[in-house]
Amino acid sequence: MDPQQIAYLGLGMMGREMALNLAEDGVLVVVWNRTPAKAEALVCENIRAVASPQEAVTSGGIALSCLANDEAVEAVCSDDFLQALGPGGVHISMSTISPTTAEKLSRRHAGYGVDYVAAPVLGRPDFVKARSQRFLLSGPPASCERAQPILESLGSQVFPLGEEPRAAHAAKLAFNYTIATSITLMSEAFALAEKSGVDRKVMHSLMVDTVYNCPLFQGYGQQIVDDNVDDPLFKLSLGYKDMSLVADLARESLVPMPVGLAVYETYQRAMAAGMQGLDWSGVNRIVRQGAGEKE
Amino acid sequence: MDPQQIAYLGLGMMGREMALNLAEDGVLVVVWNRTPAKAEALVCENIRAVASPQEAVTSGGIALSCLANDEAVEAVCSDDFLQALGPGGVHISMSTISPTTAEKLSRRHAGYGVDYVAAPVLGRPDFVKARSQRFLLSGPPASCERAQPILESLGSQVFPLGEEPRAAHAAKLAFNYTIATSITLMSEAFALAEKSGVDRKVMHSLMVDTVYNCPLFQGYGQQIVDDNVDDPLFKLSLGYKDMSLVADLARESLVPMPVGLAVYETYQRAMAAGMQGLDWSGVNRIVRQGAGEKE
Amino acid sequence: MDPQQIAYLGLGMMGREMALNLAEDGVLVVVWNRTPAKAEALVCENIRAVASPQEAVTSGGIALSCLANDEAVEAVCSDDFLQALGPGGVHISMSTISPTTAEKLSRRHAGYGVDYVAAPVLGRPDFVKARSQRFLLSGPPASCERAQPILESLGSQVFPLGEEPRAAHAAKLAFNYTIATSITLMSEAFALAEKSGVDRKVMHSLMVDTVYNCPLFQGYGQQIVDDNVDDPLFKLSLGYKDMSLVADLARESLVPMPVGLAVYETYQRAMAAGMQGLDWSGVNRIVRQGAGEKE
Amino acid sequence: MDPQQIAYLGLGMMGREMALNLAEDGVLVVVWNRTPAKAEALVCENIRAVASPQEAVTSGGIALSCLANDEAVEAVCSDDFLQALGPGGVHISMSTISPTTAEKLSRRHAGYGVDYVAAPVLGRPDFVKARSQRFLLSGPPASCERAQPILESLGSQVFPLGEEPRAAHAAKLAFNYTIATSITLMSEAFALAEKSGVDRKVMHSLMVDTVYNCPLFQGYGQQIVDDNVDDPLFKLSLGYKDMSLVADLARESLVPMPVGLAVYETYQRAMAAGMQGLDWSGVNRIVRQGAGEKE
Repeated sequence: MDPQQIAYLGLGMMGREMALNLAEDGVLVVVWNRTPAKAEALVCENIRAVASPQEAVTSGGIALSCLANDEAVEAVCSDDFLQALGPGGVHISMSTISPTTAEKLSRRHAGYGVDYVAAPVLGRPDFVKARSQRFLLSGPPASCERAQPILESLGSQVFPLGEEPRAAHAAKLAFNYTIATSITLMSEAFALAEKSGVDRKVMHSLMVDTVYNCPLFQGYGQQIVDDNVDDPLFKLSLGYKDMSLVADLARESLVPMPVGLAVYETYQRAMAAGMQGLDWSGVNRIVRQGAGEKE
Repeated sequence: MDPQQIAYLGLGMMGREMALNLAEDGVLVVVWNRTPAKAEALVCENIRAVASPQEAVTSGGIALSCLANDEAVEAVCSDDFLQALGPGGVHISMSTISPTTAEKLSRRHAGYGVDYVAAPVLGRPDFVKARSQRFLLSGPPASCERAQPILESLGSQVFPLGEEPRAAHAAKLAFNYTIATSITLMSEAFALAEKSGVDRKVMHSLMVDTVYNCPLFQGYGQQIVDDNVDDPLFKLSLGYKDMSLVADLARESLVPMPVGLAVYETYQRAMAAGMQGLDWSGVNRIVRQGAGEKE
Repeated sequence: MDPQQIAYLGLGMMGREMALNLAEDGVLVVVWNRTPAKAEALVCENIRAVASPQEAVTSGGIALSCLANDEAVEAVCSDDFLQALGPGGVHISMSTISPTTAEKLSRRHAGYGVDYVAAPVLGRPDFVKARSQRFLLSGPPASCERAQPILESLGSQVFPLGEEPRAAHAAKLAFNYTIATSITLMSEAFALAEKSGVDRKVMHSLMVDTVYNCPLFQGYGQQIVDDNVDDPLFKLSLGYKDMSLVADLARESLVPMPVGLAVYETYQRAMAAGMQGLDWSGVNRIVRQGAGEKE
Repeated sequence: MDPQQIAYLGLGMMGREMALNLAEDGVLVVVWNRTPAKAEALVCENIRAVASPQEAVTSGGIALSCLANDEAVEAVCSDDFLQALGPGGVHISMSTISPTTAEKLSRRHAGYGVDYVAAPVLGRPDFVKARSQRFLLSGPPASCERAQPILESLGSQVFPLGEEPRAAHAAKLAFNYTIATSITLMSEAFALAEKSGVDRKVMHSLMVDTVYNCPLFQGYGQQIVDDNVDDPLFKLSLGYKDMSLVADLARESLVPMPVGLAVYETYQRAMAAGMQGLDWSGVNRIVRQGAGEKE
């Protein structure tokens, strides 16, 4: 791949895998993480760890980031960082954040001659490791072009979504809304069927053996049927965060989403019941409890 | 096929196709419809029309019915009809009705020695014509066995759901709930993405090109994207009826379904806005209108 | 009062008090109850108990009924009963039932020359005993006029609502919807304030010491603050029944009621958690539990 | 009154009346407003206008503020402002803002030796002019004591809510939630009753002539009945803002509020339909439109 050196900021479950994959491809990856230990643990021939985001970048270079939330991305994008990245620099932002925050960041970047490129990820850590995740991509065309081969090497597909940085982030939120809703609708359908004597395993088969024969309903449905939610691939608390971002986007955009609010409320209920550490498909448990079933 | 003669009651879009398919297989089909013209229009070598449900059946024989709602099924199952069907008779009930009505009917049938077999249909008229619809099946085992070859000849798959007549009807309602919810969630996701500059066609691709690559999201999603909802395959008013049955089942079963109620309310809103004659994917229009978009 | 003899059907908490008050006024009250013991327990100088609704009435006379639900009212209004009440007879129906059931009943009554007068009660047993409850009144004018003095003697106020039997029943449901919603909104407001350190007692004062200084918010608010809900004046299960009737009326009338559905769902949740025997203000407990508070 | 001079920041409909009332009491009021014209228009013997919040205050003095939203309050509380107010200074914050913002502000104030006192207002401009509004009060005890006589002179009642600045703001949000919900519940109840032939005027009487005989249901109910909502005393857009703050508080506090979300969604729907400039009781129009009624 073209760039000899790339900064990678944020080494959570997702970021870690992408940094390793870049290194595997022979790129020199300069990593930073808020908790330094996670950065140091990755150090090897092609990975160097630094103590601040600004030390990770070169002027006019490329920085990738994958962070927990809006606040974390805003904290990384300090004046020092943007100055160090400087004119011609590109920040490829892979986090799931508010489109409005992205727009604000994009304007701040532009003040330093840096391009903000939105590239949120569709896929969970297991996908990322296998390079089978997808990217949504939007931002200034020239910088998107520069990002394209990097994203293609890291994942299986890139969906171009135009020039507005908010677009890719909004699409990512809309997408996660569909997943949270699919999880919740299966939970409700199973609870309803079960009270009339239809086993949830059978109800799931009815779906995936017919018109729902796709990975989303197969995978999450199976997790729900097996109540296999204690070892999270994507935490319920992150699902609540994402549904909160969806609600915020709907608030600004003035899009009434009764189903969206019902799903949001269901996640809130699960959070209030202490389920934040489960996989987000674990919201099924709060649906069952609501129906009076004991765990 | 085994039985030489079968009664078919109810010749709507679905029933009509099944009666024709039975006749095509060489069975003598005796048809009845509330509006006689629809019955008479089908008369041919293997199809005979009669003026009442009881005239359509033979003692100990088999009657199939596919009717609009609970009231229509209850009206067909008069004392005269059950008496005519008599001991050893089997009524295969394909309508989408309340599990509680089914249980009540089942007990009434038993009083005449007739078995009530629940066999609701998964699929729309186009599927039915092509014999690719599926059946959910529950009821007394011996009569289910008798129903099995008939259903297999009419459709592509039969899902056995045990001995309780309510089971197949409940599963059918839970299934239709998942479809109405999938339609509504796409409508909301598209409206949300669109306000941030993501075209609904693109948002749909993101889904069906990745983890939603299944007929349900492909088919209904395409209809929504194209706003191809004026020529209904399944009317919005029937969607409202089905979501009402879902709400009723949840009421009796004490299963709180916030998402279910949100979808129900969305269909109600569409009904109040005069959209009852659209396809049920047309609920998308009320979602868009809610977001302030003009048609 | 004018009529020398009145039939009273249904001796629950409400009916019992009205029958006693009529007797106190010197009317001969002929009572019937499904469970005969309750009728027999009332027998005294002015109260006679009979074994069936039809035995309680005289031709062209007046029957009052106060029953649990639609089914109970329909069961009382048998052919025998309507025949016995006969031409010129008036049935004053005080139960909280569906306006659609009332219309159907009204037509059946008319077939026997009997007038159906809708007179549902605003007030709980303690009000009824003290003759301070109110009546909503609708039906054929001449029979409403005949009902008027009886209702005035039994309660404190009569609200005339026109000639349509459905009107008074619909108004009663709309009214009970406002109460269930007021109870739920206090429960939510208290739970919210409490998590920010505002005691529910104080939050309640803020309301009733300012613009909510009325019996409804004073009374139910106090019950909620004191968690005084174990000794029901109106059972939570009846609240669920009434909210179900509200939902049914909204369904037929095509009135989207998102708040109504949210309240309905909250009562459903309480029912699923086994709270049916509490006072309906006890729905507060499910709201608190949802917020993660232990009882 | 004790203090000879008070700063007043924010001269919207509410602030303007309070500044005038203070001046009437003989206090020298130094006013500031973001749009200077509004400040200059008030200048008189006891009112002086300045160009910035910091010019309005004296070291160790008292500043009152009544502003549109969190951002406006945060903008006023600049370092310069807090430095000018200095040790012993008290900022009495009357705006309806997020409890979390208030806590953050309180900590920032403390850094300059300034006390943040929360004193949000219950009441609309007409109340404020007549000094009949109420104040909720929380914050450091000594400063609350200093605020008390000022608030008592400006309004009719002060509710003490303890030492935490968040408390008064949370109580204010909970209170406004109850009003928005009361408005919406009347709207729904009227729409429901009307479709069964009960006039909304009559339905309103049923409420306020019985257990809802309090200013809130009398006043807002009358506005709804008369559709007198074009001349806002409190704008629908502010209602949406407040319901958004309620939703945010519920989000952080993990208090599931299905009714709250339903009311929030109803206001969102009204905003999307372009009703932001109506009085917040105008939400009734979106409820009626939803039920298919033409304006």
